[in-house]
Amino acid sequence: MTLITETMEPDTRERILVVAERLFRELGYQKTTVGDIAKALHMSPANVYRFFDSKKAIHEGVARILMGEVEVAAQAIMAKPGPATPRLRELLSTIHRMNSERFVGDSKLHEMVEIAMEESWEVCVAHMQTVVESIAGVVAQGVASGEFEAQDVPLTALCICQGMMGYFHPQMIAQAVNKPKPHAPIEQMIDFLLVGLATRKHS
Amino acid sequence: MTLITETMEPDTRERILVVAERLFRELGYQKTTVGDIAKALHMSPANVYRFFDSKKAIHEGVARILMGEVEVAAQAIMAKPGPATPRLRELLSTIHRMNSERFVGDSKLHEMVEIAMEESWEVCVAHMQTVVESIAGVVAQGVASGEFEAQDVPLTALCICQGMMGYFHPQMIAQAVNKPKPHAPIEQMIDFLLVGLATRKHS
Repeated sequence: MTLITETMEPDTRERILVVAERLFRELGYQKTTVGDIAKALHMSPANVYRFFDSKKAIHEGVARILMGEVEVAAQAIMAKPGPATPRLRELLSTIHRMNSERFVGDSKLHEMVEIAMEESWEVCVAHMQTVVESIAGVVAQGVASGEFEAQDVPLTALCICQGMMGYFHPQMIAQAVNKPKPHAPIEQMIDFLLVGLATRKHS
Repeated sequence: MTLITETMEPDTRERILVVAERLFRELGYQKTTVGDIAKALHMSPANVYRFFDSKKAIHEGVARILMGEVEVAAQAIMAKPGPATPRLRELLSTIHRMNSERFVGDSKLHEMVEIAMEESWEVCVAHMQTVVESIAGVVAQGVASGEFEAQDVPLTALCICQGMMGYFHPQMIAQAVNKPKPHAPIEQMIDFLLVGLATRKHS
């Protein structure tokens, strides 16, 4: 019996997060109660609290899943074979596209992002670090293959990430969509950053 | 008499803005009324309304002054003699420093920035355009002197500005100050952007 409960628990945890994500999208984070989540799962609120000690913990779990999908995609691009230049381009475009889909189009999800940044900053920071590490991975491969020149790979990755802030940061993506302003198209921004990485011919 | 009124009016307009800025800083924008501004100037609210048809118009006037100071500093750096590289560095650091002083340290002024971005976006956009033009001016000088290589100067300036978003944008400066996250120091970000501008030795 203990054995069954133990193997069931990760599944229940995941089911709670799937349902919570759906309700947060449908009703908004503020309006969704732990009671609503429990009801949708045909379980008692007390059972939900066995897995997550607060609504904030559920929110963090959902935020981790949404950010985790971006991290998995980034790591898959880093792990692909082939030249680093097109993969760095693909990596930066993919993060932009996935962040736009996840955190901007949907105003209810945007509320979740605002709350994650307000209440669970450490989850956001861990995500940023993983993204920077994926970029650093591709930059290191490009340095190894002679495509890129970078003295300090982690710092270079940080600068690339910083340079992409207008395309990566949920608040900045939302601002670019909602409020017209001077804005370079992403392809041209990536071109500009790649010029800085290109191997210089030393005389 | 008409002559005196006409010459007096620009001065009154300016006095209203100076007092409004002080009150916005002291009391906050929301808490300051047109009546407070009028009282501090020993004039009637009706007289204030002769110059500004709403509190929003006063707010825009103050925002224009604060942003205008940054624009004047940027244009002065653009107009200085000497090599473009140190001036581009100075220009980018100066915008960061002035924006930090103006819009972040002071929570009451930060409220003003939020309101400007919410209600007077066109004032913010005009400011961004002026900043991008100053950057473009220095880039063009660097291209002319052979220090920089840039096929499309306005686009390059836009990319530099976009790359500096974490150091220029009031909300992003505030976030960097209030919430620790992976963040490249500004000097190293500028170095990174300058590498992308440097003249390549063509074989």
